[in-house]
Amino acid sequence: MGSTYGKHFRVSLFGESHGHSIGCIIEGIPAGTALDIDLIKKRLFQRKPGKDQYSTPRQEKDAFDIVSGYFMDRTTGTPLCAIFKNGDTRSKDYTALKAAYRPGHADFTGAVKYKGANDYRGGGHFSARITAPLVFAGAIAEQLLNIEGIEVITQIQRVGHLSAESFETLEMNASVKAILDADDYAIQPEMKMSFLQIVDEARLAKDSVGGVVEAMITGLPVGIGEPFFDSFESKMAHGLFSIPAVKGVSFGKGFDFPAMRGSEANDTFYVDGETVKTRTNHNAGINGGITNGMPVWFNCAFKPTPSIAKRQMTLNATTGEVEALDIQGRHDPCVALRGALVVKAMASIVTYDLLKEGK
Amino acid sequence: MGSTYGKHFRVSLFGESHGHSIGCIIEGIPAGTALDIDLIKKRLFQRKPGKDQYSTPRQEKDAFDIVSGYFMDRTTGTPLCAIFKNGDTRSKDYTALKAAYRPGHADFTGAVKYKGANDYRGGGHFSARITAPLVFAGAIAEQLLNIEGIEVITQIQRVGHLSAESFETLEMNASVKAILDADDYAIQPEMKMSFLQIVDEARLAKDSVGGVVEAMITGLPVGIGEPFFDSFESKMAHGLFSIPAVKGVSFGKGFDFPAMRGSEANDTFYVDGETVKTRTNHNAGINGGITNGMPVWFNCAFKPTPSIAKRQMTLNATTGEVEALDIQGRHDPCVALRGALVVKAMASIVTYDLLKEGK
Amino acid sequence: MGSTYGKHFRVSLFGESHGHSIGCIIEGIPAGTALDIDLIKKRLFQRKPGKDQYSTPRQEKDAFDIVSGYFMDRTTGTPLCAIFKNGDTRSKDYTALKAAYRPGHADFTGAVKYKGANDYRGGGHFSARITAPLVFAGAIAEQLLNIEGIEVITQIQRVGHLSAESFETLEMNASVKAILDADDYAIQPEMKMSFLQIVDEARLAKDSVGGVVEAMITGLPVGIGEPFFDSFESKMAHGLFSIPAVKGVSFGKGFDFPAMRGSEANDTFYVDGETVKTRTNHNAGINGGITNGMPVWFNCAFKPTPSIAKRQMTLNATTGEVEALDIQGRHDPCVALRGALVVKAMASIVTYDLLKEGK
Amino acid sequence: MGSTYGKHFRVSLFGESHGHSIGCIIEGIPAGTALDIDLIKKRLFQRKPGKDQYSTPRQEKDAFDIVSGYFMDRTTGTPLCAIFKNGDTRSKDYTALKAAYRPGHADFTGAVKYKGANDYRGGGHFSARITAPLVFAGAIAEQLLNIEGIEVITQIQRVGHLSAESFETLEMNASVKAILDADDYAIQPEMKMSFLQIVDEARLAKDSVGGVVEAMITGLPVGIGEPFFDSFESKMAHGLFSIPAVKGVSFGKGFDFPAMRGSEANDTFYVDGETVKTRTNHNAGINGGITNGMPVWFNCAFKPTPSIAKRQMTLNATTGEVEALDIQGRHDPCVALRGALVVKAMASIVTYDLLKEGK
Repeated sequence: MGSTYGKHFRVSLFGESHGHSIGCIIEGIPAGTALDIDLIKKRLFQRKPGKDQYSTPRQEKDAFDIVSGYFMDRTTGTPLCAIFKNGDTRSKDYTALKAAYRPGHADFTGAVKYKGANDYRGGGHFSARITAPLVFAGAIAEQLLNIEGIEVITQIQRVGHLSAESFETLEMNASVKAILDADDYAIQPEMKMSFLQIVDEARLAKDSVGGVVEAMITGLPVGIGEPFFDSFESKMAHGLFSIPAVKGVSFGKGFDFPAMRGSEANDTFYVDGETVKTRTNHNAGINGGITNGMPVWFNCAFKPTPSIAKRQMTLNATTGEVEALDIQGRHDPCVALRGALVVKAMASIVTYDLLKEGK
Repeated sequence: MGSTYGKHFRVSLFGESHGHSIGCIIEGIPAGTALDIDLIKKRLFQRKPGKDQYSTPRQEKDAFDIVSGYFMDRTTGTPLCAIFKNGDTRSKDYTALKAAYRPGHADFTGAVKYKGANDYRGGGHFSARITAPLVFAGAIAEQLLNIEGIEVITQIQRVGHLSAESFETLEMNASVKAILDADDYAIQPEMKMSFLQIVDEARLAKDSVGGVVEAMITGLPVGIGEPFFDSFESKMAHGLFSIPAVKGVSFGKGFDFPAMRGSEANDTFYVDGETVKTRTNHNAGINGGITNGMPVWFNCAFKPTPSIAKRQMTLNATTGEVEALDIQGRHDPCVALRGALVVKAMASIVTYDLLKEGK
Repeated sequence: MGSTYGKHFRVSLFGESHGHSIGCIIEGIPAGTALDIDLIKKRLFQRKPGKDQYSTPRQEKDAFDIVSGYFMDRTTGTPLCAIFKNGDTRSKDYTALKAAYRPGHADFTGAVKYKGANDYRGGGHFSARITAPLVFAGAIAEQLLNIEGIEVITQIQRVGHLSAESFETLEMNASVKAILDADDYAIQPEMKMSFLQIVDEARLAKDSVGGVVEAMITGLPVGIGEPFFDSFESKMAHGLFSIPAVKGVSFGKGFDFPAMRGSEANDTFYVDGETVKTRTNHNAGINGGITNGMPVWFNCAFKPTPSIAKRQMTLNATTGEVEALDIQGRHDPCVALRGALVVKAMASIVTYDLLKEGK
Repeated sequence: MGSTYGKHFRVSLFGESHGHSIGCIIEGIPAGTALDIDLIKKRLFQRKPGKDQYSTPRQEKDAFDIVSGYFMDRTTGTPLCAIFKNGDTRSKDYTALKAAYRPGHADFTGAVKYKGANDYRGGGHFSARITAPLVFAGAIAEQLLNIEGIEVITQIQRVGHLSAESFETLEMNASVKAILDADDYAIQPEMKMSFLQIVDEARLAKDSVGGVVEAMITGLPVGIGEPFFDSFESKMAHGLFSIPAVKGVSFGKGFDFPAMRGSEANDTFYVDGETVKTRTNHNAGINGGITNGMPVWFNCAFKPTPSIAKRQMTLNATTGEVEALDIQGRHDPCVALRGALVVKAMASIVTYDLLKEGK
């Protein structure tokens, strides 16, 4: 039972890749909020696969119906439910797939956990398709954060061996934010060609490649986070590791900290007018699990998409044999590509939920 | 409000570094369990600072009283409360410290969050001292896991720039487990001198150094973890990021995944008798957020201890000026050193809690 | 934020009386369960208003779609979502109603709580219509309880001043259970005419009347309930008071206990073969908040339906004046009539959830 | 696992009647609160048994230590832990009691639930002694409510067959409040002799008698309560049914509603200056599960104390036989007597917790 997240802004997801519908219930949107439907649609379009060769060819309409909690163009304060119909999931013979436990996927673990009763078609409840209602909820959280002057910016920071400039050093201004926000993949313009080329090479090799998504949250007040167990890092990591394919999360200097000395790692305070700031921000705006007013920044490592077109050794659940199988036709050669969008959504949900817990 | 963790094995922590007592309440220990008090004492001794020059000189007795939930040497099934008296917290003038917001610490964030009413002495509720009752609870979870054939092994995998052999390749057998388990710092014997030397160099420089703790969980059944939001990684990372100084968590190949191809990253299944296994274990025994029966392994990056003896620029809360101050006398030059022990405790708690949620 | 109930069997409700759809998400149904769709339909039909003059004339189809969590006629183990489209909610001018705060209703409190943004049409999220998905979820919990040999029986025990024989003395056998289960109103046959006549008198007077629903749960094992705060009574009462119009809940002798002596009130134990039983059952099968193996029984007081056809003084929100208004056309003259059905649903949900917490 | 209550003001209880200590952890007290220690002591003294013949002769000191979360006479914002040492629990031979399952008690259910490992001495975790830390926590919640202009008043409304004037009609003014607040048993002066006489008669008959506690909450804002599942009534009843011996809870007209007509039961609104009020208050200040600004009032039925000095048939767990046994020496002849105090505590905790959820 893990489909519900949040204490003050609660999101419950439902649905399977090839079922009737997917969707979410959201509680905790302030009553009387006029939703920014354009922002929701923009985020869903950015998430949408099938737009080019860098994602799966699946055509999803991603049209949604808000069926409750919204009246006269404002939220009612009671649960808002949004439903996405699964459009074109034509009758394909999935019987073969049922027996095939693909490596790196939840086919095997899901079958055991759910005693063989899980909907195996297209990954069922484990499908990346389920991130559509998550992005829907995230866009609402994003709007609510923006009202309080808080922004969540994300970018593809790495694809394969190639890295873009990190938010640690990149000067974050309105123009940079706007560029990253507008780009479907949230890639810095000078990196776009190179990153997509790496993805395309993987695709042509019938393979996939991993990446890193970096995020920055600006405008947070001092005092957000609840020690001992619900530190800002704990809550954020909890959310981020829910995203399919995320296998690592680090804050600030993260895995570079072990090689540092304390005198380097500590961020010296200074006073700027009325505001306490730090000269460096190695600790990612978090001390003792609580925000210190500096931008929060973190990285998420995405593994390469496990679905690949290449022939792979696959476990035949019926026979118990491992066989070379060609399962996928076209596939998503870099799940991290749309990761910047999903990280933005999840990070917005977590941040808004923690913000409402209080300073 | 973040001092409570767990759904089936619930731990609530309380206390401050220099207050009257610290301790915990634990719910969810099966009624009738004869606690392994020796294991609890061993883990508390391993956690205990002041044994050598590699930790703070603070002398804590770490004696505990179990004041409820334990009757005739067995758990009653109702809440178990353990209390650790804070021994020698002699009257020292902490007034100076109140005004000094040390860099990298929760002094500033805690003061703002708690409106200046927090107990600032020795870090108060943010002190590493609070990990004593956590280790107490962890030792109980460890005992309960062992009964079900599950073991949590940890080691110091890195200090500064130097790394030990990872659990990924280290052959994990009973002898290796016993050696790591017996060593107070959970360091592989051949690395011990080198690691401690690095720590001592930092100490002599009145500075500190970071490290990496690696963990492996063996014996887990298939099917543990609750998608979407409560994946095994989500729940484990939530717990791990509660540990003071942890700034990064990665599972399996973690931050090496981005540079990999899918065909490399996927772990091929094979069948060993009745058991499904994978030839490699890059995904750390977790697919789709659910355990697949292979060992789970992960890494935690610890930042260097922020408390250092070196003179540092510190914010004077009274004057609003930043001043060079010598605050610490002796300090803990590598908080990661005892991290292997604390990670073992937290990982045991999270694992037992998730295990009880069911396969 | 109160639309989610349960720890092991979690129900989240959404929807408004005159919105697009209402429904629920359920988590915690064991994977691989073939749902008893006939039972679900039977319970929904029993709940359905508009069948005779004793309920509101609203015609609801109460057809539902299970849009997730159900595959090949079995539950998948992931969240099950059921949606009920709101059929005939024709464009009626509700503007007048918006301004009218009816006495005894949530019109005023809902408007203040949700800052005037609530969907006021037909009571919005506060409508009894929302009990349709609750009855859906309850029928699933009922099926799961039946598998474990547990039955929840309810009856209309009182309407107005007239009372039926209580479950305390009524001999509960398969035949009685079957009769009460089959009757849409769960009324003992010999009381049916009299009860319905009282309701009809109230209806003809353009007024309404209250009632009492009594419930009995048989087949519960010893040991269910979680002291201190989650006693069986606490959890059950929490659920029951969620049902619109319930204003009192009592277990066993309830409000007759105050006048009793301890020597009368205590239920003497005896041993029947291997089983410990009590000679009387004043305490309703619960001692110290934990079930003792005897049947649990309790009563729920329903207030008379606040919606009445009679002219009433109503607060005009626009003018701030109290005015005599005729608001309702036909109405539900005794909300308790369908209460036996809703109590059965809620009691099944609570019981199954507590049962899974363990003995 | 039921020893923790609350979302915004969280109380965790621990301890057994004859163990080392009992106590509680409280989270959610605003940082910087100077606790009203006199109020806490007054409430604990009122709860204390052994003051006269109307309660058990057990002498408890009820002295407490606040061991965390309190610094320089103010709350720190982190968990506050209070410990009550169990003083005089002299070595008595409890072996006989272990085998005796008293009727009406949790001896049998506790033994089954906890597999015989529960601390049976004096009822263990089920002892009324555990209400001492509850009253401690309640006194803090009471103080926090008072700051916001909210008061919780309780009285013994009934003992045996005799009733005092209900809060429904009693004019509630400062003087009445003060009198009820000051009296240890919260009995109206003119009833005191009669009530205590009934209790004493029961005591002399080596028996016990039940009672009703009535409560009123004044000063609540409009909009408190969270439909659907967390209505004001649901949350309050959840808390109240945690109190040992409570078997019935009703709001406003409660079990008198069934016999009423809607036109009587509805409370007509009127406008008093800027404030919306109702002419009657049958619905106890709650419509649709949400407060309407009128006083909330409710009744709790207490069963007679199950411990009586009279010889009773008791189940011998060792032999499986039912035997006539004299178990109790002196006992508490009316547990409801101190109930007004415990209801005040629990109601304060629930109300403050719901208030912080928001209007």
